[in-house]
Amino acid sequence: MEKEPLLMLPGPVPVPERVRLAMARQAINHRSAEFGAVYADCVRCLAPAFGTENRIVIISGSGTAGMEAAVANFGRGRKIACLVNGKFGERLFDISKRYGEPIALASAWGTPLPLEALAESLEEGAEVVTLVHNETSAGILNPAREVGRLCRRHDALLIMDGITSIGGDVVEADRWGVDVAIVGSQKCLAAPAGLAAVSVSERAMERIADDRPYYLDLAAYLKNANKDPMETPYTPAVPLFLALREACLLIEEEGIEHRIMRHQRLAQAVRVAVAAWGLSLFPSIDGQHGYSNTVTAVRIPEATTDGELRGLVKRLGVIIAGGQDHLKGQIFRVGHMGAVGAPELLATLGALQAAMGRLGCRLDGDGVAAAADHLA
Amino acid sequence: MEKEPLLMLPGPVPVPERVRLAMARQAINHRSAEFGAVYADCVRCLAPAFGTENRIVIISGSGTAGMEAAVANFGRGRKIACLVNGKFGERLFDISKRYGEPIALASAWGTPLPLEALAESLEEGAEVVTLVHNETSAGILNPAREVGRLCRRHDALLIMDGITSIGGDVVEADRWGVDVAIVGSQKCLAAPAGLAAVSVSERAMERIADDRPYYLDLAAYLKNANKDPMETPYTPAVPLFLALREACLLIEEEGIEHRIMRHQRLAQAVRVAVAAWGLSLFPSIDGQHGYSNTVTAVRIPEATTDGELRGLVKRLGVIIAGGQDHLKGQIFRVGHMGAVGAPELLATLGALQAAMGRLGCRLDGDGVAAAADHLA
Repeated sequence: MEKEPLLMLPGPVPVPERVRLAMARQAINHRSAEFGAVYADCVRCLAPAFGTENRIVIISGSGTAGMEAAVANFGRGRKIACLVNGKFGERLFDISKRYGEPIALASAWGTPLPLEALAESLEEGAEVVTLVHNETSAGILNPAREVGRLCRRHDALLIMDGITSIGGDVVEADRWGVDVAIVGSQKCLAAPAGLAAVSVSERAMERIADDRPYYLDLAAYLKNANKDPMETPYTPAVPLFLALREACLLIEEEGIEHRIMRHQRLAQAVRVAVAAWGLSLFPSIDGQHGYSNTVTAVRIPEATTDGELRGLVKRLGVIIAGGQDHLKGQIFRVGHMGAVGAPELLATLGALQAAMGRLGCRLDGDGVAAAADHLA
Repeated sequence: MEKEPLLMLPGPVPVPERVRLAMARQAINHRSAEFGAVYADCVRCLAPAFGTENRIVIISGSGTAGMEAAVANFGRGRKIACLVNGKFGERLFDISKRYGEPIALASAWGTPLPLEALAESLEEGAEVVTLVHNETSAGILNPAREVGRLCRRHDALLIMDGITSIGGDVVEADRWGVDVAIVGSQKCLAAPAGLAAVSVSERAMERIADDRPYYLDLAAYLKNANKDPMETPYTPAVPLFLALREACLLIEEEGIEHRIMRHQRLAQAVRVAVAAWGLSLFPSIDGQHGYSNTVTAVRIPEATTDGELRGLVKRLGVIIAGGQDHLKGQIFRVGHMGAVGAPELLATLGALQAAMGRLGCRLDGDGVAAAADHLA
């Protein structure tokens, strides 16, 4: 078998061996002290990454299941203001349509969120707000603190998709006033795909909908998480919990502050390389939001195409992402989240630089060297 | 570390090493030909176990997620007749309450289903019927063929929970007229917990609800399963798919007919042992239904208690199940599903016989020897 390619995507990401091997052991009973301890380890280590003292529960399902759990349990029948400036903002709006009365407060992908429109919506009685903190489709970080301030002023619940920020960038759910935050296992946590962790505030629990779904009933998850030993209401994906526990212990061992600084340094290094090449980041930022620290989006040089560029990079053993929906063919995206470090980043930049050179792109300078200087 | 205990539960079950090791490899991109081939292998091997030519999709979630997907997509706003003679029949009724207008057609756990009442309900306009084929809570197999015949006569959709029968007992979804069948990964398939496979008939698809949930939207699963390569609508639990593929290939290698005969032989051996001991199966069967071939429920002898008996068996390295809800303390249950064979069964019966002897239960004879004779 050929060597596995290096996944530099905005998820899934490379999973450390210790995490993967945790899944190879024999099945354990999920109604047992042993499983309860695994679950407890996960939520203990996740709390600092969420920046919360709220209860955290873990759902066997993707990040989207976590998003739906949040909207279905707290948005049912309510006015929901959905902030949208990328694909996952759109997804929260789509989910909200199935449960409540959403309004999309939208701006073009990657452009600043319409916070004035949010303030108006809240004045007009929006009870729930949805926000994507780190929007991987556009490579941006949205101003969660400001959104949280507006929500608190109007006593609205804030649901925050932190799927690609929690564990890789600064998240302070409690200080920002985030009532429900969601993370996916296969992003900054560097665990395999298939679990979503959701934190829930007391304020949110007081307003939980009476009419809830079954598998995604957060009241049932919270009730079972309060048992000793901790349990899930339905059979959990045990190997994924075993893996997540190891991934969480790695976060605890590294320390969340160090981990965030590592992500920030990697993101800066990519931006330094892009500048040295003379290429443009997507989008051009000059507003309330900022560049993502876990994924970087870059405009594809005119001399080449998405297919050629990513194809050649793949032949060098590195998988990067293209644009989604209307950005397909316009941008490429490099994920730098989870357990990766300087070697993986330099391999990626080296493959990109070589590929662009071979495809006849005129680069201003040596981006790999510039990034290496920054990292050193 | 102590040796892992032997899980003789009605799920989770021991997972073969080849299946477990499939999870230890590096993450793969789920939007790729490689992942599509994994998904395709799973559904190809599952089709004969379901007895269907209908499309099969796989949800990253427990069997309960599959049950809810069935009810939410096909029962929304409809009259649902829920057949209930055990815990999982009750669960389908509970789920149905969140989506449609269910009537519980209930009999005591383990007793025959009220098929006359079903016929009446269908006459009165029930559009959807829910059935648990193999009810592990009571150790029984319900008459799916007869229920299917009634449903077809009245053009109602039949949703069948085959979570603990598919892959271990005879299931002929198409011949019986089952429109939606569900299996869980951690039961007869002997894969890890965390996936549910759902088959959907054309007839059901023509009647799918307009108002569907998001994560469990079966139209989205079917649409993405029709892509080439096959995809899931949301990020799948990749390691669990890799494991399920191996488990499914093992089923294909064994052959579904042989696998079912192996399960039947193991079940008969347990019943032979119980008879030799002079104990009583739960329930006493003399009707349309039969004993489960994947789990056996036995009344706890008067001389001992559930806690003492299962505790002592556990000290001998074997985990068996107790009763659920009102049967707690009344019965114990031995799972014999998945990849287990004569050695695991004899170990379990040996531990039980020794434990009962030590606890002062008067046994009529040597159940282990009787079971071994039957198996040989």
